[in-house]
Amino acid sequence: MSKSQVVITPVQQCAAAPLVREPLSAQSAAELAGVFKALSDPVRLRVLSAIASRADQEACVCDVSEGIDVKQPTISHHLKVLREAGLLTSERRASWVYYKVVPEALQRLSQVLLMQGEQVVGVNA
Amino acid sequence: MSKSQVVITPVQQCAAAPLVREPLSAQSAAELAGVFKALSDPVRLRVLSAIASRADQEACVCDVSEGIDVKQPTISHHLKVLREAGLLTSERRASWVYYKVVPEALQRLSQVLLMQGEQVVGVNA
Repeated sequence: MSKSQVVITPVQQCAAAPLVREPLSAQSAAELAGVFKALSDPVRLRVLSAIASRADQEACVCDVSEGIDVKQPTISHHLKVLREAGLLTSERRASWVYYKVVPEALQRLSQVLLMQGEQVVGVNA
Repeated sequence: MSKSQVVITPVQQCAAAPLVREPLSAQSAAELAGVFKALSDPVRLRVLSAIASRADQEACVCDVSEGIDVKQPTISHHLKVLREAGLLTSERRASWVYYKVVPEALQRLSQVLLMQGEQVVGVNA
């Protein structure tokens, strides 16, 4: 495998418990670090937020490019990294690929950061 | 400033709203990406979890080194990065420096990842 082919474990497959519950194992930490790495780039965060903040939490690369001063191939690369991290899914429709946020993935990551006695609840649920 | 002197904005000073609320501005994304970068290293995640999972959420470098097969100066470097990101505070007592988790910082980060209609609540509050 070349250096450029870094394998990211999708957040859904990360075995990590909340950080406060028990010391992370080396493997859980490596998996989780890969997902946080996907979020450690300003443009990737803007791309994710641009999609997540849309009413249907879905967008194609042309939608995302509006308002972010970065060329489309770069946006496409960032979308691929976010998809590999399990934060987005993609679906081809005619000649466009649409990307959609995976709410469970963000919730899973949010829960890893919770302190003892905290939990994520849906206020409208 | 040399390349090695990267300034991390502590999470408490990040202006970012939850990713779903509105598209992140370039500045908010840059601040937030720095904090996620602090969490994107497997050893740093293990160090943070080793402290967070202790009963008093506090430890000195010698406590943290147990169980993580990394030399103390490397652990000290990672503790410094976590402190700069606002995730830990430090206090010198006699000849040891003690590091403590900042619960509000982890909660702040957890909230950034929440979906519409979700919130973090303390079940024991």
